[in-house]
This record gives sequence, structure tokens and C-alpha cells, in this order.
Amino acid sequence: MRLSRYFIPVLRDDPKEAQIASHRLMLRAGMVRQASAGIYSWLPLGQKVLRRIQEIVHQEQVAAGAIELLMPTLQSADLWRESGRYDDYGKEMLRIRDRHERDLLYGPTNEELVTDIFRQTVKSYKDLPKILYHIQWKFRDEIRPRFGVMRGREFLMKDAYSFDIDSEGSRASYNKMFVAYLRIFARLGLKAVPMAADTGPIGGDMSHEFIILAETGESQVFCDKALLDLDPLAMDVDFDGNLQPIVDQWTGPYAATDEKHDADRFNAQVPVDQQVSARGIEVGHIFNFGTKYSEPMGARVTGPDGALVAAEMGSYGIGVSRLVGAIIEASHDERGIIWPEAVAPFKVGLINLKSGDSTCDSACEDLYARLTKAGVEVLYDDTQDRPGAKFAAMDLIGIPWQVLVGPKGVAAGKFELKCRKTDERIELSADSIVERLT
Amino acid sequence: MRLSRYFIPVLRDDPKEAQIASHRLMLRAGMVRQASAGIYSWLPLGQKVLRRIQEIVHQEQVAAGAIELLMPTLQSADLWRESGRYDDYGKEMLRIRDRHERDLLYGPTNEELVTDIFRQTVKSYKDLPKILYHIQWKFRDEIRPRFGVMRGREFLMKDAYSFDIDSEGSRASYNKMFVAYLRIFARLGLKAVPMAADTGPIGGDMSHEFIILAETGESQVFCDKALLDLDPLAMDVDFDGNLQPIVDQWTGPYAATDEKHDADRFNAQVPVDQQVSARGIEVGHIFNFGTKYSEPMGARVTGPDGALVAAEMGSYGIGVSRLVGAIIEASHDERGIIWPEAVAPFKVGLINLKSGDSTCDSACEDLYARLTKAGVEVLYDDTQDRPGAKFAAMDLIGIPWQVLVGPKGVAAGKFELKCRKTDERIELSADSIVERLT
Repeated sequence: MRLSRYFIPVLRDDPKEAQIASHRLMLRAGMVRQASAGIYSWLPLGQKVLRRIQEIVHQEQVAAGAIELLMPTLQSADLWRESGRYDDYGKEMLRIRDRHERDLLYGPTNEELVTDIFRQTVKSYKDLPKILYHIQWKFRDEIRPRFGVMRGREFLMKDAYSFDIDSEGSRASYNKMFVAYLRIFARLGLKAVPMAADTGPIGGDMSHEFIILAETGESQVFCDKALLDLDPLAMDVDFDGNLQPIVDQWTGPYAATDEKHDADRFNAQVPVDQQVSARGIEVGHIFNFGTKYSEPMGARVTGPDGALVAAEMGSYGIGVSRLVGAIIEASHDERGIIWPEAVAPFKVGLINLKSGDSTCDSACEDLYARLTKAGVEVLYDDTQDRPGAKFAAMDLIGIPWQVLVGPKGVAAGKFELKCRKTDERIELSADSIVERLT
Repeated sequence: MRLSRYFIPVLRDDPKEAQIASHRLMLRAGMVRQASAGIYSWLPLGQKVLRRIQEIVHQEQVAAGAIELLMPTLQSADLWRESGRYDDYGKEMLRIRDRHERDLLYGPTNEELVTDIFRQTVKSYKDLPKILYHIQWKFRDEIRPRFGVMRGREFLMKDAYSFDIDSEGSRASYNKMFVAYLRIFARLGLKAVPMAADTGPIGGDMSHEFIILAETGESQVFCDKALLDLDPLAMDVDFDGNLQPIVDQWTGPYAATDEKHDADRFNAQVPVDQQVSARGIEVGHIFNFGTKYSEPMGARVTGPDGALVAAEMGSYGIGVSRLVGAIIEASHDERGIIWPEAVAPFKVGLINLKSGDSTCDSACEDLYARLTKAGVEVLYDDTQDRPGAKFAAMDLIGIPWQVLVGPKGVAAGKFELKCRKTDERIELSADSIVERLT
């Protein structure tokens, strides 16, 4: 993509309304613009990152056996009256009345709606287990929306729902999502730690939050360093097999948020040099809640013995739009964002230090064409801005690799390749650069 | 995908509420379920088709130079007060009040919001032209939602917006979208005819609807057969060049909807044997409306002479969720849907006529593995249903190619390959089937 044709409205100065790094950097890098309080427009760079994250989430959900569908944003209030949550949910639920005076609401979550689909369509234990998921916009009318997309009102969430005939099956579904989540966060370049959690308004008896470590995180977390040394992507995972040993590996060592922290147990269980005390951000939350919804809503199937039983359910959420902010909180410096390659909007930023100079232009065009042809996504800064402004903008938007093309380099047949994360720079021929980046 | 693990809740009987073929078939094939009046959940098969259509739309928008962003579903009423449309829009607009008593609305379209983004970020003619687009859910509170996703209330739309410094540039942007639309509909397997249209509440002085021909279409259309013989995919398109000759080719011959039809002109202009009178469905609508929004909302940029000028704008919509229904209206028979390959949820339906028979099972597993490995998406009916039920279901859901594996075929080393559209059947070896389908 040629920057001259693209749309990245960077800001020179820090926006006043931003209190945290990700909010500040997303506004400055032209990734989002606030449309209303807690409601954002995702500009091209932001939308590209949002898409990358979604793609990884999709791949890992499917790999774990989950099936994609898509439920609407607006739901009927009647369904929520059936589960008893319509009155419980309070002012965070955005309630709407249509032209025929029917009560609707903007879904803050989808347990009721997916249970309704299930009860209409699934009649026998033979059709179980099933894990259904979607990625869809949700709305929670936060009293004080803040921190940009980290605590917005309209937000993008991946939510999955499992249906099993018994609690053993339900545990197996829970484990699948548990392991899928570990893989998702690792692929996004994040260190995520699962922690036993309260179930809150979703309900149920087993629940884990997934917390990623970031200096600017919202809450204090405590854990055994052993958890940070585990690599879920190095583990051999068979989603049709027994995942309990993997789950045990991750739930055995000590890990707790501030609310659940027990200093005595922490000290007794974890050697001092293994103790990690850090800031964390919640990016996922999974629940096993049995028949809390299936029972009142009549989502029953015929069991092997012919008797009707309420489905055992769980739900599994990932804050997709929140993750964009969380990744930035975990990966930035004073100059800007540092994207992990897996979610970077472009892999390479190509900087023409003297646009208009025919040798620089043709060297850039050549590199741009070769990298693009090889399937590498390149943002080519072909604008007339001064080199200093180009360096600053490219550092700000955080593309992992930069290639600098100036008159001296062109004359010598060498170009500077810079790693945004380490700031390492090496001089290479065009051939070597193409080879390295493809 | 193994059907035993998937989720396609087909209906045996015609649903009473469905008045048109696409609505009936989408319900019967388990593609959608109604969640509330005019609001649908997209089940896995429906969501897969919706994704395929979106992908083609994305590719062609990007090829035409449009840039993707993503605006939120909820918008501030204040923006619509600026343009004057808040009061004009009537009861079709879903109006919402949040916990702080602020007026929001569920966007029925996005001219105001995109103009707000533009005026905040673009200051100079040097940054033009720009075409920004997104695919996002919209809501129109239809008084009588009906015909399934063809006339739903919550619907998925692709809307693009162009910004130019003068009307000449704006015309060039309009032409880009005009040609992109022709390509999109052709790639979706549809015959689309552009017709001069009224501008309605969007406004402006130039507008075309894109109408696809379908026997069960909602309106009568009249056109010159020459238009149906044009193939936009066979034309050499340079989106940076002058597209007026292509646009002229498509706007020269006679074409009109019932409302604009002039029988005398039709007869004078089109020889009788070239006259086409058919039913049509509107699937796209494009508008050039100059400064209707940029002027009242103050979206001005500095021109080459230093003076501030209001941006010349256009907007370009495609009903993405409506297209799913429209494609079915254009392509089905009494047995079910007939998907064009480009949007089919799976390319191949593999039917095991005797699940549980070890030779049939292993022949199926072999074909399934080989096709999947070659990147072909296969729906493998591995269930215990009787052959008749499997045939009927596969015809109903409309997968373009069926492979039938029964004991006799396995013994002879031949399997039946059936084309859903033509009903042609041939017997082929496993090798030949894999070769043909990859």
C-alpha cells in the first residue's frame, strides 16, 4: 500500500482525553477516532489489526472443534425475561423500543439467544457435543466509558457456547476452550495466565480469567514464574483427546488476581525467586455454568435412556477489540507501538528518504514490487514529508520491519533494514532484504 | 467438514411464514433462524455464504482503490441533526436513549459519520481523492419486515463513500464504483443491470440501481438484451485510467424499472427480438450527491488556490445479507438451492451411502482426505441417515458437486460425480474425481 493513497491520519500531539498508553497511541497512530462516548470508528490501520486478531481467533476456534455462526446485535427482551436476566442486568444493558413498542436490547452477551437456537434445533444427545461461536459487536452501557477501546461501550467480542449431555462432556468442552485460549493469546504474541475467577452475572461453578501481563495493566496479579515459562504453542495438542493434563499444567501453579490473592499461600507455595508480581489485563473469560440457562429456557435433549435432560452449558469470551489495546499496552515504547508480527497491519514499512529523486524512487518501486509479489504486506511511504517526519510516523505506527532507502544507499547498492522492536539496523543489498523478509 | 460434527438443522417441511423461495429455502436448509421480527441468526451454512460474498466484495473494493475502515453500529443523534436528516428520517430510524439520556440511533446508513471522520482528518486537496468503505450491520425499522433476509430490519451492508475536490473527480470515483459493482455481481454468478434511479432520501443528481434478474424478483424491469450479453469480467479494467467508455457501454442501451419505464421509447430504441422484460431485485445503489453533506457539516479542504471548498461526495451501497437471498432467488429449483461455485458454502458434498460399511467408510475417508488436502472444501455426510434423506438434504442445501459412494461403486472402483445445477452424472475413479475437483 502506498501511503499517499492510504488513510492514516496521525496526530502530532498527545490527545488530552487519553489516560493510558494504548488509547493515546491508537489515537496518535490514526487507528481509531471516537464517534460518541465509548464508541469508536476503526480507521484503516485499526481495522487491519482487528481483522488479524479475528483471523487468529477464528483459526483456533475451528481447530478446537467450534463451529461459527453469527447472531444479531439486537435481541428480543422476551428471551431475557425467560432466563430472568432482563431485570437483573441493570443499566449496563441498552434497552430499546421499536416502532411497534416491542422491547429489544443490544446484546451484551448471548447465552439466551444461543440457548433459544439450540432448543429449537437440537433434540438428541446424538447431536452433542456442540460448541458454537461467533464474533459480533456487543454493547454495554458503561457509566464511565474510558481508556479507549479497553473499556468502550460498543465492543467486538468472540463468544462461544458449549452444549453437552453431561457434566463430564461439559468439562471436556471447557478444556478445549481453555487450551484454545492459551494458543490464541500465544499466537497474538502475548503471555497469558489463566486464573481462577468469580463467575459474576454469567453464573456457574467453574471459571477462569485469562490475564495478560502488561506494565500498565489495570489490576495486580500474582503468579508462579513457571507459568510464564510454559509455551502452549510448543505443546502437542489433540483436541479430540484428553486435554486434562495440559489444563492441569496450567492450573497447578499459583496464580491469582488481587481480589483472590492469598499472600500466605503464595509464599508457602512459590519460592521467592519464582514469585511474579505484575500488572495484568483481562482479555478472556470462560465459564462452566451447567443448566443455569437450559433449565429455565427448556433446552432439553433426549438422553441415551430416552429421558429428557437439560443441556450442560459453558460460555467462553474473548474481548477482540479490547485485545488491540491490550497488545499495545504490552508492547510499546516512548516512540510508539511495537506490533508483534502476527497482528501487525503491515509487515514492512518502506521509507523513501528522497521521494522525487529518480534513483530513490526506482529503488523503492523495485523493492515494493518484489516484496508485494512475494506476498509481503508493505506500507510504502512515498510521500513528500521530510525524513524525520517519516521516521517518527513509522516508529509511531509500529510496523515490525523498516527498510530505509536514501541516495547514499542507492549509490552503494545497500539499504538499511531496521527492526522496530530491537532497533537493530543492518545494511543489506536489495536481494538480501527480499530474502530476509519473505 | 463432517456433517456429524457440523450444525445444519434442515427442516423437512415448508415453514408457513415464508412467502418467497429464498426465505423458504434458507429456513429449510438451516441457513438462518429468525430471532425477532426481521432479525435473523445466521447459522453455520448461512454465515459461510455471507463470508464468501463479503470476501468478493472486499477484493473488488480494494482493487478499485477503496480503503477499508469500520464505523460503529450506533451513532450520535447530534450528527444527524447537523445534516438535517434526524427529523426527516421518520420511523424507519431506530432511536435509542442511553443511561445518560443521550440520543443515539442504530445507523441505517453512514453519510453523516463518515463526513465527520473526513472533516476531522482531511485538510487538503493533496489528500484526495479518497474512497472509504466498510461492511457493517445496519438497522431499518421496517413497518412490515418480510421475505426473510431480503427485507429484514438488521441487515449487513457494504457502504462506500467518495471524497473529491471537484465534480470531475467525483465522476471518476463514481465510475470506479460503477465498474467495481459490475465486477462484484458477475463474480457472484449474477446478471446485474445498472439502471438510472431516483435518489430518494440520500439525495444528489446522479444515481444508478443495480438490478439482478430473477423470476421471483420484486419489480418488473425492461432492458435491451445487449446488456445481458456484456461480460464485465471479460473487460480490461484499469481503475487508474478513464472508465467512462465502460460506463457508457452499460448506460447506453435501454434499461428501466417499472417506475421509470417508457414503453414508447423502449419500442423505438430496442428491436422487438432484443427486448427483455423480466423480474428484478435491487442489490446495489450508487449516488453522486455533491456537497449535500459536506456543506452543512463543514467538511472542507484547501484547494490548489488556497481557498476552502466543500468536498464533492458520493455513496455506494451493496446489500450483502440481501444478496444471499437474491442469489437463491436467481438460482434454485424445486429440490432446493443451486449455489454458484464462487459463493457455495462447500464446493463438494461427499455422500456415504452406507455409513458403517467398512469399505464405503474407507473409500469416503480417502476421498475426503485427498480433497481436503488439495484445499477443496468438502461437506462429508457421514451420518446414519438413509440414502434418500441424504440425497434430498444435499440437493436442498445446494452444494455444486456431489460425490456418491456406495458398496457397488466401491467394488467397481467407480464413484458417481453429480453436478447439482445440470443434474449430469458420470462415473469416475477416485483419481479422476480428485483431479476434476481440484
